[in-house]
Amino acid sequence: MDLHITNILNDLKKDDFQAYLLTKFTNVEYISGYKPTSFAFCIIKENPIIYASGMDMELASRDSSIEVREHDSFESMIGELKKEGIKRLAIEPTLPFSTYARFRDDFEIDSKTYIDKQRMIKTPDEIEKIAEATEIAQKSFLQLDILNNKNTEKEVAFDLVRAMIENGASKESFDTIVATGAESSLPHAIPQDKVLQQPVLIDWGAIYQGYCSDNTRTVVYSERQQEIWDIVAEAHDKAIKAIRPGIKCCEIDKVARDIIEGYGYGDKFIHSTGHSLGLDIHETPGFSLRDETVIEKGMVITVEPGIYLEGEFGVRLEDTVEISKRGNVIGNLPLNIL
Amino acid sequence: MDLHITNILNDLKKDDFQAYLLTKFTNVEYISGYKPTSFAFCIIKENPIIYASGMDMELASRDSSIEVREHDSFESMIGELKKEGIKRLAIEPTLPFSTYARFRDDFEIDSKTYIDKQRMIKTPDEIEKIAEATEIAQKSFLQLDILNNKNTEKEVAFDLVRAMIENGASKESFDTIVATGAESSLPHAIPQDKVLQQPVLIDWGAIYQGYCSDNTRTVVYSERQQEIWDIVAEAHDKAIKAIRPGIKCCEIDKVARDIIEGYGYGDKFIHSTGHSLGLDIHETPGFSLRDETVIEKGMVITVEPGIYLEGEFGVRLEDTVEISKRGNVIGNLPLNIL
Repeated sequence: MDLHITNILNDLKKDDFQAYLLTKFTNVEYISGYKPTSFAFCIIKENPIIYASGMDMELASRDSSIEVREHDSFESMIGELKKEGIKRLAIEPTLPFSTYARFRDDFEIDSKTYIDKQRMIKTPDEIEKIAEATEIAQKSFLQLDILNNKNTEKEVAFDLVRAMIENGASKESFDTIVATGAESSLPHAIPQDKVLQQPVLIDWGAIYQGYCSDNTRTVVYSERQQEIWDIVAEAHDKAIKAIRPGIKCCEIDKVARDIIEGYGYGDKFIHSTGHSLGLDIHETPGFSLRDETVIEKGMVITVEPGIYLEGEFGVRLEDTVEISKRGNVIGNLPLNIL
Repeated sequence: MDLHITNILNDLKKDDFQAYLLTKFTNVEYISGYKPTSFAFCIIKENPIIYASGMDMELASRDSSIEVREHDSFESMIGELKKEGIKRLAIEPTLPFSTYARFRDDFEIDSKTYIDKQRMIKTPDEIEKIAEATEIAQKSFLQLDILNNKNTEKEVAFDLVRAMIENGASKESFDTIVATGAESSLPHAIPQDKVLQQPVLIDWGAIYQGYCSDNTRTVVYSERQQEIWDIVAEAHDKAIKAIRPGIKCCEIDKVARDIIEGYGYGDKFIHSTGHSLGLDIHETPGFSLRDETVIEKGMVITVEPGIYLEGEFGVRLEDTVEISKRGNVIGNLPLNIL
C-alpha cells in the first residue's frame, strides 16, 4: 500500500478512528493521483475507496491509484461505512458544515490534520516539481522586460501568464498581481487598466505537474522607495538565513518582523512572513506570529516580508525556500532585477 | 439599510436567530461590495459588521458599504457577539468545520441558506452584468475562427481568455475547457498540448464586474457526431422552451433527460441539465433530478445537456437562460456555428 495511506492508517489507529474522509480536491489528488473536477468522497480505511461523481468516472478510473465507485447517495455511502463497522470518523478541518451535518448522526466525528501534516514534508519528487514551476515562472518574468514596459497592469499580468504557459506551466498558481504606483500598497491588488506606474510590484507563480511556485519582486525608482526596499530586502535575507530544522516557524516571522519594526514600520507589515506551498498555493505551516510548528527537512515555505504605506506605495519581496540542513532558496532570480 | 440585509434580518427573526455569519467571499461581496482577498467574518445583525484581515483593511474600508473592523482573535470577536446578547447564530452551509468548531461552544448554531435564496433572484442590474459577460464571451469565441484553427487545445483556450480580457472581461469565469477528439467525452477536460481534433467542444465564460457567463458549443464533423449533436440540440431547445415561472427545476431536467433517454443515451448524460450562476459560476438552484425548487422570475440558470461516449467523443451544448415570463436565452450565439 502507498506510504501516504499507510501513515494515515497509523495515525487513525493511534486516535481510535476507523476512517478518514477527504473531500478537498488536492487532498484526493495527493492520495490517489486523481483530481476531482466536481466532487468526490475519498475514504481512507483498511480498504480505501473514492466515491466519485458520475461525470468524473472516466477520469477517476483512469487516474486513481485506489478503488473508485460512482457516488449514489449519502444514505448508501453511510450505510456501507456502518456495515464495515466504522464508528469514529475523522474529517478535514475544511469540510463544509453541510457535509459534516450529513455524517454527524451516524458517526463520532472530529477534524484531524493528518493529511496536512503529511503534505508538510515534501518528497524529492515534489520538490523537483516546485523547482521546475519556479524556474518556469522566473524565466517568464525575465521575458517581460519590466524596465522598458509601457503596457497596462492587466496586459503585463496577461503576458506573464502567457509566457508561463508557453514555457511549460499548466496555468498560473494564483491570480497574478501586477500592482503599480499607489496600488502597490494593497497586498492582494487586482491588475488595473492603467499603464505601469512606479514602483512596480509583481507577485506571480506557475503550476507545473500540479505543483505551485510563488515569487514577488518590486522594482523601485525613487530614493524613498529604495529606502523601503532596502529594509524589506534586509528582512527577507536575514529571515532566510535564520531558517534551519529544529527552530519554530514563529521565530522566523520574528526575525523579519523585528527588522521592520526596528526601522519603525512594524505596523506597515500587515501579513505573515510566509506560507508553505505544494499542490495548493497556501499550505501549512507558515512563518507567522502564532505558528509554533517546528521546521523540518523537506518543508517548502515562502519568505515574503512587505511594507505597505497606504496611499503611497508598497514593497514586497518573496522567495520560496526548501528546508534541508538550512533554508535553500529555490530558483535564482536576483532580488534586485535592475 | 440595504434591502439584502433587511431581508436577511427578517429571515433571522422568523427563525429566532440573532445573527448570520458569512465568510464565503462572494457572499461578503454580495452584501457589502467588498470582496475579501484573505479572510473575513461578515456578521449580519441589527448593526452589521465585517471583521477583516489586517492586510485587507485598506481595500475593505474603500469598498465596503457596512462597517469594517480589523479581525483580532476569535476570542474577542465571540466576546463581542455574546456581549450583544447573541445566543443563536446562523451560518452558511459551506462554512468550514474548523470555523464552526470555534463558535459551537458559545452559540446555538445551524446552517441556513438565507443568502443563497436571496442570490437566486437576480436584480435587473445583476442580469445586465451577466448579459454583458455573455456578450464579451460570445464575441471573443467568434474571433477564434474555430473552423480553420490549427492550434493546440491549450493555445485555443489561451487565445480565448486573451480575447475575453481584451474585450473587457476581468478574467475567465472558470478554467476554459477546449476538449477535442476522444477528450471531449470528459465533461471537465483539461486542454492538452495537441492540435485540435474532431469534434471540438469548448466550454467557456467571462467575468464582467464580478458576474459570470457560461456557454458551451461543440463543432462536429462526421455523420455519427452530427447524429449525437442533433439529439443534444433537441434536448437543449425543448428544455429551454419548457422553462417558465411556477414549474419545478427537476421538471426541466426531466424534459432534457427524457429526450436523451428516448434515443437510448440516458446513461451517457452523466450530469445535471443546468446550474444557476451569478457572482459564482455555480449557484443554486439547478436543473437536476432532485431539485424541487420552483422556478421564479429573476433566476438565471444554464441549460447544458450532453452525451458522452467514453473512448469516442462527447457533445455538450449550453446556454444561459434568464427567467421572465418564460426562459429567455442570454446572448445570441447560434447553437450551430458552422
